[in-house]
Formats: sequence, structure tokens, C-alpha cells
Amino acid sequence: MRLVTYATDGVAAGGVLVGDRVVDLASAVAHAAREDSGPPRPLPVRAYLERRLDHVAVAAAAGALARAGEGVTLDEVRLLPPVPDPEKILCIGLNYRDHAEEAGLQLPSEPMVFAKFRNSLIGPADAIVLPNAVERVDYEAELAVVIGRRGRAIPEELALRHVAGVTVFNDVSARDMQAATSQWTMGKAVDTFGPCGPSLVTLDEAGDLGDLRLRTRVNGATVQDGTTADMVFSVARLISHLSRAMTLEPGDIIATGTPAGVGFKRTPPVLLKDGDLVEVEIDGLGTLANRVAGPAAELAGGVTAVATA
Amino acid sequence: MRLVTYATDGVAAGGVLVGDRVVDLASAVAHAAREDSGPPRPLPVRAYLERRLDHVAVAAAAGALARAGEGVTLDEVRLLPPVPDPEKILCIGLNYRDHAEEAGLQLPSEPMVFAKFRNSLIGPADAIVLPNAVERVDYEAELAVVIGRRGRAIPEELALRHVAGVTVFNDVSARDMQAATSQWTMGKAVDTFGPCGPSLVTLDEAGDLGDLRLRTRVNGATVQDGTTADMVFSVARLISHLSRAMTLEPGDIIATGTPAGVGFKRTPPVLLKDGDLVEVEIDGLGTLANRVAGPAAELAGGVTAVATA
Repeated sequence: MRLVTYATDGVAAGGVLVGDRVVDLASAVAHAAREDSGPPRPLPVRAYLERRLDHVAVAAAAGALARAGEGVTLDEVRLLPPVPDPEKILCIGLNYRDHAEEAGLQLPSEPMVFAKFRNSLIGPADAIVLPNAVERVDYEAELAVVIGRRGRAIPEELALRHVAGVTVFNDVSARDMQAATSQWTMGKAVDTFGPCGPSLVTLDEAGDLGDLRLRTRVNGATVQDGTTADMVFSVARLISHLSRAMTLEPGDIIATGTPAGVGFKRTPPVLLKDGDLVEVEIDGLGTLANRVAGPAAELAGGVTAVATA
Repeated sequence: MRLVTYATDGVAAGGVLVGDRVVDLASAVAHAAREDSGPPRPLPVRAYLERRLDHVAVAAAAGALARAGEGVTLDEVRLLPPVPDPEKILCIGLNYRDHAEEAGLQLPSEPMVFAKFRNSLIGPADAIVLPNAVERVDYEAELAVVIGRRGRAIPEELALRHVAGVTVFNDVSARDMQAATSQWTMGKAVDTFGPCGPSLVTLDEAGDLGDLRLRTRVNGATVQDGTTADMVFSVARLISHLSRAMTLEPGDIIATGTPAGVGFKRTPPVLLKDGDLVEVEIDGLGTLANRVAGPAAELAGGVTAVATA
């Protein structure tokens, strides 16, 4: 099943993507339970995950509703990030062998963890807004894992049971801010620097997480082309590791690192600028395409960046 | 005004601390507005901050209600962290000159930013639970700033206008996890490692943020005794800096760093163990006292740590 968060007339709701139609998630859940619950209320994706329902049954119900003409077409809605309100966005650094090599750094002996917050999340319809305060902005194609089941101290062999599904993530990075101190979070947690989507693909439909191809294109030119087979720490290992310290909650996002080809290590460097189109594609998960907008968009209110004084 | 989040019969609500009484925040707000709004509903502190009401008027209303015998006494409630649901918990490293010196590190040229999440937050009634996965757990007394007004790219001279108030924070740290890689977040974002409270003291009552004394006692022995006058980057500078990248939201917490005297740099080291009592006190803001519980508490479900399989 492909879960989305979508907005119509400014109201956000969870949905199920069936072909090019979006079926309301609350309706699909009610239909799967054979409940006639009256007019459906919006069911956020995170609240859906917390209910731990049978994805296969909900997907079947959504399919039946779509065939009956329910829902709306993709061009009638604005897609938001699949989970716009996670408690945590945990990001992993240097988790691909080829990227560690291009960065001239040793493979880490443990996962390197930094953070973003909700202010970074944008959906496929939104622009990456370059702040005035930074000069060197880069893309990073990443597989993002979304937690479906609460857990702490999760053994590696049980870790995938805690995964709801996966989606495409772009760990946009302000290289100058990131490198200003030893701690990377400041250059990573910038407003709009976490494009995510278009949909959360449930694990049953996502294929082998250890064998997915990731590609990034900037203005049509391929700049990253890697595979999750090259990860230093597998998805299961990352979940097990993080849960040694933290209770993972439904909706938590783990961005699992990027393969080689990042812009600031290229010759000549490829840094994002106003007007660029950045596309991140993962096999079976779709393409996440975002425009880049210059500081003028920030000053004008931008997407999530609102200046007050 | 001293804002708290308190639980009675398992229901959390915002409150105002008046002496040893807790007055319901929704009631105080209704009274200040001279509204007879019927039975008050719980008003979370974060939602209160978003309404940007006049703290002085609400405090006066709370005082009048307390004098009329409304509210409950402190021993009838459980205090939670003042803002249990922030969007962001931003932590600053090496922000005191004497702490940088004891750590043998140069003063940073820019603030060093790492993260915690909601899973770390506990109130003054809760235990710091030592996980099985770590061995060297340390305290860090910190002044925490809570944002009251949304902002981005905030000039330093206007930054304090964005502050709702301040509270006491203990940036509990797993030194072994923190040092395992260059990124500190993993050893900082552990469940229960963010004691906060007892109350959020609004800025009008907090005194000069650049001249507050902070002390930590472990089992009664003073181990940290510093002053915010020793900060490398002032509260206003931190807010201005962070907002270059991120929109700061009402309820966001900024933990502003710790003075000298942390446990792992002492001779002999002072590391937290099962049964210890850690008290962090800041002049005018109160004392935050937390017991330390061993891994047995974690296995038994602990405070916020819930193991599932």
C-alpha cells in the first residue's frame, strides 16, 4: 500500500494512493472493517500507524473504493510529506562505503546519528528554500524508514517487524553550516531541508531493503546512482542500534544515509541554486522531485519559513 | 508566572504554580478574560504559549483564584515537564568557558548544536533510567529557554522578545555513547535523559538571564557551581544563530550548555548510578531533583522506556 498525506482546500488527511487516485484513509479503514461509520473524519497517517491495522486489508478496501470511483485524482490534491508530524527524524551519516570513500573518511564503527525536526519536512510539491545564511547547499538521496511499532532495545533479528514502510528522502545539507563545528545538526535541520515522499510504501510492497537502487538527478543529469546493498549498517542494524538508547515510536523517520556522488565532493562541485530541479528516485518507491528556490522565497514567506520580527 | 504541566488521575493539563497551589491554566485564562466559559478544558502549556496572551494578567487571575481556594496543592499532583511536547529540543555544547577549559577544548567559534527528542523529557517526579547499553552516565546543569513566539532569522537585539521563559534542565549524557562517533546526539537522546522543570518561569520574573547561578548536587554534594555570566554565546545570540537555519516555534526548548564540574572530568570521576539523587538548582527558577534508577527499571517498563518485542 502507498500511504500519503494530502491536502484539499487546505485540510490535510491520510490517503491511499491507488494508481493516480487518492482514496481517503479513514474511508478505506472503515470499509476494511465493514463499518458504516458515517462521514469519515481525516485519519492522519501517524494515527493510522498507531492503530496497527492489517495493511493488506486496508489496501484491498482502498482498491475497491477507487474502482467504485471514490477519491480524487492526484492533480486535484497537494501531497504533503507522508508523515508530516513525526516525533523524531533520525539521520545516519557516512552509511555507504562509496560515500565514505569519496569523503576521504574511514568507515564508522558505529552509526553516526544526527537530527532534523518537523520544520525541515516538505512534500513533493514544495520547494527547497535556500536561506540567506548559507552558501553551499547539497542533495543527499536516502532511503527513509518509517517506524510502525513502538519499541526499545529491539534485537536486530526482530527489527523489521517494527518498520511500517519506506519512502524517499533528500537529506539536503548546508555544507558550510554543517562544517562550522563538529556537530552536523545545524547544517541539516534547516527549514525545507527534508523533502520526503511521494508516498510511504508499506514493507510488504517495498522489496528487499538491502537491494534498492537510488538515483539523484539535478536538472536531468544523474549525479548519484547507488544501491542500498552498499550500506555499512543495514536497516535492521540501525533500528536495533537506535533503540538501545531511544524508544522508537510509530511515525518516527530514520534517514539511512546517502551513497557516493554528493555535490560538494564532485569536480567541479554541484551546489544547488535557485531554479534547480532535484529528483531522487528509488526503485519501486517512486521519484521525489523538488524545485530549489532562492533566498527571495525565504524573504517572501517561502514554504514553511516565516519571518517575524 | 510559573507555568507547569501537571497530571491528576492520569490527565495532563497546563497549570499555574501559586505558592504551593496549582491553578488550572484554562481557568486562569478564562478568569483573566472575564469569560464565564463553563467547565474549563485542559489547556496545554504549548497551546497557551501559541495564544500569546498577557502573562501578567493571567498570573494575576491565577493568584486571585488561588486566594479563593481554587486549584489543588502540589502534593496532590504529579508534575510533568513544563512543555512535554516541543517540536524541537536544541542543545548547545561547550557554551561555558570553564567547561571548555576542563574538557581541554578550544572555545567554539560558533554554537555547537545537537538534539534530543520528546522521549528524553521527564519531569521532577520521574527517574533517570540507566539503559543497559551504556556505562558512563553524567549530569549537566543547564538553563533551558522556551520559545514563546514564532520566528526565523531573528536579529540578536530582538531575540528575547521570542522567549516565553526559562526553566531548569539536566542534559544527562551517556559519555560512552556520546564519544563512540563524532556526533553526540546518540548519547544525549536517550529515554529519560532530559529532566526538565519544575516550572517554566516567564521572562518577566526570571531575572537577568546573563547572571543566574546554576548548581548541581549529587547525593547532597555540590559538583557544579557556575553562572550564566560565563556563557560563550548569550541566550540572545543562540536564538539569533539557530533561527538563521530554523523557524523557532512556541514550545521549542533550547538547552544552553553546562558550566564546569561535569562528572566524567572529575578526579575521581562521578558517574550516575542506581539510587543517586541529582539536583540541579538555578537561582529563582527552583530545583529539579531526580532519582537515578538502574537497568532493572528499564526492563520493568521504567518511566517512559517501554520494551516491546
